[in-house]
Amino acid sequence: MPSPQRADRVEEPGRSARKRAAILSAATDVFLKGGYLGTNVDAIAAGSGVSKQTVYKHFGSKEVLFVEIVASMTSTAGDMVVGETSEPDDSTDLAKYLRAYAETQLTVVLTPRLMQLRRLVIGEVSRFPDLAKVLYERGPQRAMTRLTAVFERLATRGLLTVADPSIAASHFNWLIMADPLNRAMLLGDKAIPSPDALRRHVAEAVRVFLAAYATRPAPTRQVKAARRSRRPSGT
Amino acid sequence: MPSPQRADRVEEPGRSARKRAAILSAATDVFLKGGYLGTNVDAIAAGSGVSKQTVYKHFGSKEVLFVEIVASMTSTAGDMVVGETSEPDDSTDLAKYLRAYAETQLTVVLTPRLMQLRRLVIGEVSRFPDLAKVLYERGPQRAMTRLTAVFERLATRGLLTVADPSIAASHFNWLIMADPLNRAMLLGDKAIPSPDALRRHVAEAVRVFLAAYATRPAPTRQVKAARRSRRPSGT
Repeated sequence: MPSPQRADRVEEPGRSARKRAAILSAATDVFLKGGYLGTNVDAIAAGSGVSKQTVYKHFGSKEVLFVEIVASMTSTAGDMVVGETSEPDDSTDLAKYLRAYAETQLTVVLTPRLMQLRRLVIGEVSRFPDLAKVLYERGPQRAMTRLTAVFERLATRGLLTVADPSIAASHFNWLIMADPLNRAMLLGDKAIPSPDALRRHVAEAVRVFLAAYATRPAPTRQVKAARRSRRPSGT
Repeated sequence: MPSPQRADRVEEPGRSARKRAAILSAATDVFLKGGYLGTNVDAIAAGSGVSKQTVYKHFGSKEVLFVEIVASMTSTAGDMVVGETSEPDDSTDLAKYLRAYAETQLTVVLTPRLMQLRRLVIGEVSRFPDLAKVLYERGPQRAMTRLTAVFERLATRGLLTVADPSIAASHFNWLIMADPLNRAMLLGDKAIPSPDALRRHVAEAVRVFLAAYATRPAPTRQVKAARRSRRPSGT
């Protein structure tokens, strides 16, 4: 949020913002393609149609620019994972809600660009530990914090039984994310599942999660039989 | 496995094997520290006390040497994850068995050297896709194949109910691996859990897995009460 003081100091703020956006966009492409070490500021300047000096004026250094891109791409993805389905009031729609939640999260995260960003950041952990920390906090940590709040509310409504909502959030997050994420990390973009495969994967993961956390699991056949035998006929 | 023909061609096989081992050991240290691009064969030769020509004679190229190190470190870790506890015959020891299995796997995989190797390989996916494929196949894929066989046997004994053992294997593998692995990848070695934290994590993961896959879940209080009411007193 630019303060009035800041706006006074910046000439032609609209033009400056456009240049900044052009640099960010070009830099993202160049970094994702060449990696951190393989990228030089000349290529970013050329790609965004500004001078090298302008790149430095806006971002100070190649490192600052890289941090900005990681923070911005990860946050944008996180912003997109907003519960599109409203939280259910009873257990009827619980599985459906969790499946929709999971499908949204997976679809937003499992893109070639975000996978490549993640590979790049992981490859640079020893050189730039803070960068990976930014990605962790704005990526998986943020997703699990949001899930923790969802599961607290669902537990309050009696739909889930959770001793520790943050552990339940971690279980849910990794039941849905881990397999496709790990495959995409190592096997490349062709391992990103198709929408159909993703739906099947999510359905199985949600089944496991609800077996452990749903307050009312589906009665087993034995219990049903026991109930029937105790039930007066005709009701 | 060297064939007799090959042994005939290699002079002083003992000395040659020692040199090969020395090169591999030095190269592992150099690659893990400097990354693929940051490593040159001179440093590997110096570290192993042989000439650069000897390094090339044994491994052909820097790339072949890197592949060899990834394959060897990943396979060695996989070999160590062998069921130390024998598989249980009844449900009494099922949870204990799965916890021991999970603790062994996590302890073997979550080492600073393997984490650094994994970061390095992920960072090089676009340059060396085959390398990450080797790591995937000898790492997570091998772990899940072994688990699939275990769960098939446990299902045959009636201890687990699994529609698809490979899906159950994926769920188990990622319930135990994903959270600590992802944290270690991004947050570095200090995020590798302590033995106590690891045991607590494993206990929760195994609870979730058994809630979804154990053939006889622990009876709920209602079912216990129903059973008591039908049971003749004194037995």
